[in-house]
Order: sequence, then structure tokens, then C-alpha cells
Amino acid sequence: MSDETHESAAPGTQGTPDGTSDVGAAIAGISRDARRAAHELALLDREQKDRLLAAVAAGLRESVHGLLAANQEDLTRGRESGLSRALLDRLALDEARIEKLAASVETVIGLDDPIGRVVQGRTLPNGLRLAQQTVPLGVLGVIYEARPNVTVDIAALALKSGNAAVLRGGSAAARTNETLLAIIRTALRDTGAPAEAVQSIDAHGRDGATELMTSRGSVDVLIPRGGRALIQHVVQNARVPVIETGEGNVHVFVDAGADPRTARDIVLNSKTHRPSVCNSAETLLLHAEAEEAGREALRALLRAGVDLHVDERARRWLPTGDPADSADGQPMGEVHPLTPEDYGTEFLDLQMAVGVVDDVDRAIEHIAAHSTGHTEAIVTDSVARADRFVARVDAASVIVNASTRFTDGGEFGLGAEVGISTQKMHARGPMGMAELTTTKWIVRGDGQVRA
Amino acid sequence: MSDETHESAAPGTQGTPDGTSDVGAAIAGISRDARRAAHELALLDREQKDRLLAAVAAGLRESVHGLLAANQEDLTRGRESGLSRALLDRLALDEARIEKLAASVETVIGLDDPIGRVVQGRTLPNGLRLAQQTVPLGVLGVIYEARPNVTVDIAALALKSGNAAVLRGGSAAARTNETLLAIIRTALRDTGAPAEAVQSIDAHGRDGATELMTSRGSVDVLIPRGGRALIQHVVQNARVPVIETGEGNVHVFVDAGADPRTARDIVLNSKTHRPSVCNSAETLLLHAEAEEAGREALRALLRAGVDLHVDERARRWLPTGDPADSADGQPMGEVHPLTPEDYGTEFLDLQMAVGVVDDVDRAIEHIAAHSTGHTEAIVTDSVARADRFVARVDAASVIVNASTRFTDGGEFGLGAEVGISTQKMHARGPMGMAELTTTKWIVRGDGQVRA
Repeated sequence: MSDETHESAAPGTQGTPDGTSDVGAAIAGISRDARRAAHELALLDREQKDRLLAAVAAGLRESVHGLLAANQEDLTRGRESGLSRALLDRLALDEARIEKLAASVETVIGLDDPIGRVVQGRTLPNGLRLAQQTVPLGVLGVIYEARPNVTVDIAALALKSGNAAVLRGGSAAARTNETLLAIIRTALRDTGAPAEAVQSIDAHGRDGATELMTSRGSVDVLIPRGGRALIQHVVQNARVPVIETGEGNVHVFVDAGADPRTARDIVLNSKTHRPSVCNSAETLLLHAEAEEAGREALRALLRAGVDLHVDERARRWLPTGDPADSADGQPMGEVHPLTPEDYGTEFLDLQMAVGVVDDVDRAIEHIAAHSTGHTEAIVTDSVARADRFVARVDAASVIVNASTRFTDGGEFGLGAEVGISTQKMHARGPMGMAELTTTKWIVRGDGQVRA
Repeated sequence: MSDETHESAAPGTQGTPDGTSDVGAAIAGISRDARRAAHELALLDREQKDRLLAAVAAGLRESVHGLLAANQEDLTRGRESGLSRALLDRLALDEARIEKLAASVETVIGLDDPIGRVVQGRTLPNGLRLAQQTVPLGVLGVIYEARPNVTVDIAALALKSGNAAVLRGGSAAARTNETLLAIIRTALRDTGAPAEAVQSIDAHGRDGATELMTSRGSVDVLIPRGGRALIQHVVQNARVPVIETGEGNVHVFVDAGADPRTARDIVLNSKTHRPSVCNSAETLLLHAEAEEAGREALRALLRAGVDLHVDERARRWLPTGDPADSADGQPMGEVHPLTPEDYGTEFLDLQMAVGVVDDVDRAIEHIAAHSTGHTEAIVTDSVARADRFVARVDAASVIVNASTRFTDGGEFGLGAEVGISTQKMHARGPMGMAELTTTKWIVRGDGQVRA
């Protein structure tokens, strides 16, 4: 989820005037069609799936004008309704971005088929031949915000992994998503695949999303992508299985004896490389004996414009009015006294909580108390303390002597990223297409019965 | 779940007079202690875990008298409250059964440690070294019925896989489980492990179970083990991740051209080998051209005392009053006309629905409509139709030419079985200890930052 940010946009806006029972029937129909399409998709071989994706990419390139027009409608409506500049930017398409969408579909074409892989197998003493093979999950439900690229990314990853998708995009991108969906469905039809493989429930508003979330059997898994509010809404209300993604209250601990320059570079990169994304650091923990590294890091953070929320001990290590501390032309970060809430805050911005701890075990305890289980990092020169940190910190990704920004499907070499799971079931950490599969045991015999 | 049956006992009986907020605090405390214990357990090596399990086995053997006395109390109370004979039998311990409990713990000692296995790893071009390692899930919640063996089995599997367990056993086994828990906790203490690694919430009644199910973060996964009513109650009400286990509306399809004897033996074994368990067959589908095999199978089923619920076409293949058809001394099964509900019924008894279908695709459609996704079998001599069935039937286990009773962790060689998952997320089919783990990405660098 390298480009996922966490604004707290609501999952949808309009309700349906017709009442929930009609919505219920509509969602049930969509789910049924998706299930039927999923059964067909599961049987496609790689060549068929790649041909289908190539048609999607071609369709995107051929529809630049239609897409831009639809997107313009969404942007105009967004401006009128006072959407933030950041949201408008995320929503906006131009020719280069459409080309990027098409190219990302082509990237998926280049990836191995995750279906039909034999995970394990054996021949039993009685002659039964067992094989546990990967198969598609079936129907994916994806609830996301005003990001047209998610529509295309998820559709491509779902189709390549043989899954149908039921999409609920943010209403702010309604026209753009409608146009994208039409392109995808044309590609499906043109290549002989079921058009119901990718469907939207946007027309059924918030009630439709609620219905989807609460109807067991409607989808095999629900993947919310977006801000904390959206994810928590889904997690709290869903009755179907959910993969929780992307909340990252990420810590960097600088140990005693850590090389000051290395520590400074890792802290700075973890915080400032892309502050709005989930693998960015939010809290800096400094070992009480890491004064030089601490001073270097705090100075660099302030010079990069990061506001610091510091505890009493960290405050003593702040630079003191030295003119060399001010960055050229750039406003220095501000310093605030740490409040009790700061350690639990995912700032997603140029802000950072800073505390001093007495040793690695205090850092591990602090992390256990405040971590969202996404990414936690230590900068250390001690093998023993690195191992201790790795063994005791409970997170999807534990990093020694590198930036937290590396927790990313692309960086990990997983090919394409569906999201970063912060839960422990099914998938943990960056999810690629492999995480959109389940398995089936295939047992072949010649008449065996149990004695 | 080879010895799991599906009576519809309620998940608990007594409430707590003190009100839910006290229960809430109690469950929160238990969860917190479990979490702390889990952090310690995660650090134990195999030798420590096996020593601990050896102490549990020894404790069971040393406590035969105490266990029998506690069990006698439960049995007396059960008889007074009119518990069924089957439930009383399941609840009852004797010396042989206690020895079996101890032996099952020793079996777990013999299994490989599922923790610390490197699932995948690579060195990235920038020099970062990645390893995805298995780690414990953390805290398992297990809600089950009056089966003392589950208490011991789950505790052993949880501890060997480094997980803490919070148990909610049926109230009918309260005294027995209390004694078993005391034995396990003594073993934990005696070997230096945290006693809170295995805890019970039975004292907090049904409200405690509800609190556990609905408090996100209390447990990492909830595993219901027992009858349909219990599992559905948990699935419908839980807000924590659940692994759904053990519902099996299992079909056997006998294809045209199937060898009649092979078909008969597989059908008979699938239905009658142990009718009360989830991998037993409930519906027999006969190809319209499989008359000889169909006649053989129906005759054998009736002779084995199986009541048949037959559709119009299958009725024509029933044996007709031939004295050779009645089994020696054993009452023949009865014949009933098929009702619409029969195809959806998990009989778990000597009863079976029987229908005739026109071809393999009709069988696949029938299964898609009625399957619970547990186990589905085909008896066929056709490679093409076997492959078609395997590719198109969506179930945890798809079996060609063998009894459905083989879907079982023990039979599959998984070592020990936690249950049979009928869902697609995280685990599907027989679950061993590997399914009680998650993974952690460990990233080691020497100062890498993202450009």
C-alpha cells in the first residue's frame, strides 16, 4: 500500500430512497452473478487471463477522452462540494495517469499465475495421492475511497488470480469509476469472459455497502482500502471475513551505540520520504545513551520541517537556536511538549512523537503498547539487541538498520500489492496475488475406503 | 475433526448475576494475561515446549483419581439434567481414556515445531535481506462443547505452536475441565512457563463467551468446535476473526461407467463408517446411466440399516422385496420419498438423500447449490470427468475414487488436527499446527533508505 493514505473520508454519501429490502435484493443479485462469474474465471488458464488483461489495457488507452470527460465531471462536483485539495489531486486523471493505469495492468500480465500451484502433496501409504493446490478465493469485495487507480489495480489483480470482484468506490469518483468499469466489462465480453466478473455496487449507495458487508456468503473476503475511518467502519460492521489493511503507527528505535549518521538517515527517511503513507514512522524512541545519534536525528527532522512532540528527556537534546540549524529557505519544524495522545497518533504528516527510553526492553514494551502491528524498526550495532528486538516485537514487518518505508509489496519483490495486512489471519504484511488465493485438497485414489 | 460430531447443544448455560460490565472487566483481564503469556511462549524453543508438554502428560497420569472424581460429578449432574446418552458418553472419562489423553499429548511432543520456519526469503538488489518466518498467532480462543479431550488437545497444540489459549468449554464438563486446567497450569508453572498460557472463562458463563467473541483484540482467532448451532452462533456474533470448522453436507457422485463394486464400497464407507462425523456423506448422486452401480449401492446401504430419502428415479433402482436383501439379524433401512429439505440436511446419522442426475455437470451444479464446501467425491472411470469434477467443485477437499472419510488431518498426515476448516481464509480443510501460526517479515539491512 505504498501509495495509500489515510484521510478519514466517509465510505459513501447517498442512501437509497427505495429502502433497504430493495437494496438487499440488488446486492444479492450482484453477489449471485459474481459467484457465477467466479466459477468461470477459476477455469481460465493464464493465456486467457493475460489476453483479457491486455484488452483492459488497450481499452484504457483507447478511452482517454471519455475517461478525462468523466473525471472532469467528478472533479467539478468535488470542487463544488468542497473536497480537499489532496483528495481532488488523488481523484484527478490526466493522459499520463491513464497511461500509468494501462501500464500497471501490463505489469500484472507479466506476473506468474498464482493459481494451480501445488503447495504440498504426498502419496499416502494406502496409495491415495494428495495435492494441495492454489485456487481463487472466489468473490472479492473491495471498499475504497476516491481513487480511480484502485478500481483498475484491484480488477487486474482479481482477474489474474481468477477472482470476481464487487467494488464499492467512493462516491466522489462515481463517474470516473463508471467509465473504468465499462472499459473493463467490454474487455471481459470481448475476450469471452463473463462481464459480471467485475461489478460495482456504487449505485446502491451506503446501504449497498452495508448490505455487502453484512451478508455472509455474498463475498469470500472484504478488503477495505483507505483511511482509518473507512477501515474501522468495515472491521466493526462486517459479518463477512475482512482483511484489515494499512493502519501503521510505526516506530523507529535508536539503540545505544547506533551509528549517528546511519540513525539520522534512517529516521529521516522513515519519517519524511512520504509522510502520508502507512509505512512512514510516527514515533521516534531514543535510547538514553544514544545522545549523539538522538541530537543528529532531531536536528535533521526539524531542518526537514518536521514538528516534534518531545518528552522531557528528548527536549534536552534539541538544537538550541544555532543558526546552522535552520534549513535553507525552509521553515524549521516546531517543537511541542508531548501529550499523552501523541504516542497513539498516526500523524501521516510532518509530525513525530519523540521519547527517550532506558533500554531496548523499554522500547519493546512501548511498542507493544502502541503498535498497530504494521512495521517496527531498530537502528543498532548490537547483534544481541537486534535479535532481541526481532524476536519480541510483534508486527508484520520488523526491520533492522533500514528505513520503515521498505515494508511494501513492490520493494519486497511481490510483484504487485493488494494492500498491507496488519492482521494475523490469512495474510500478514504486504499482500500480493498469492494472498488472493486459497487452496483445495485434491485426493485421488482407486477405491480406497477407511478400515 | 475426525471425532467431532454435531449435536446442537447450546454454547453455555449459566449467566452471571453480577451483570455484563463485571464480566467485561474479567474477560479483559484474562485476555491481557493471555497476551502477556503469549509473548513469553513465543520465545520458548522446542525443547522447552516439549518439556512442558511432557509435564502435562505426566500430570494427567498422576491425577487419574482426581480426574475420575471430578468427571463423576459432571456425569451425575448431567444425568440429573437429562443429558443425552451420546453426550454423557462423550463426557465420560475412565482410566483408558485418561491414558489416551496423555498419549495424545505425547504425540504432539513428537511433532516438529511449527515456529521459526522460513517460508520465503531473498536478498534484494539493495542488499536488504528478507525472511518471512512463522510465528505464533498469539492468543487462541476456543469455544467447544462437553468434550474433555478438546481441552487437552487444544492446550497441547496451542502450547507447542507457542500460542496462549482462552478456553470456553461446555458447562456440562465444568468440573472435569477445571481439573484438567489445574493439571495443565501446574505443568506450566513447574517448567517455568506462564500459568496464564492456558485459561478458562467458564466461570463467566455465557456472557463471558459473548464478551470474548465481541472484543476485538481479546483473542487473535476464535475457533468454535462442536455442533452446527454452536458454530453458527459464533460465526454470526463474533467480531474477532473466526475459523469456521466442521460443517459437512458431503456428496458422493457415482458416474456412468463407474465400477459397481468400487462405487458400492466407497458409498457405503462414506456413509456408514462413522455417520456422526462431518466427513461422512449425506447425499448420494447417481448418474442416470449408472444403474448397476446405483442398484448395488442402494441395496448395500439398506442392508447396512441406512434410511434412504430417494427421488423418483432412484426409487426405481431400489431392491424389491427380495429376501436376500435383508441383512442377517439387522433391520433394513427404511425408504422415504425425498423432501425438498433432504438435500440440505446434514443427517449425521444412518440416513442419506439419493437423487439421480443426467450427467456430471448436473452433479456439479447440485453440489454447488447444496455443498458446505467440506468434502465432495466422485466415483468414475473417466479421466476427463474426474478432471472436470476436480476443477469445478469448490470444496476444501475433492476426492476421486475414495471414501469421503479420508478428509482428516490424521489421514492426510498433518500430525494432529485442530479442526477442519470449511472457510477459505487462512486455512481450508484439515488444520494442523501450521494453521495456528502466522508470519513475520524480518528485514535486515545496513543503513538502507528509500530513494
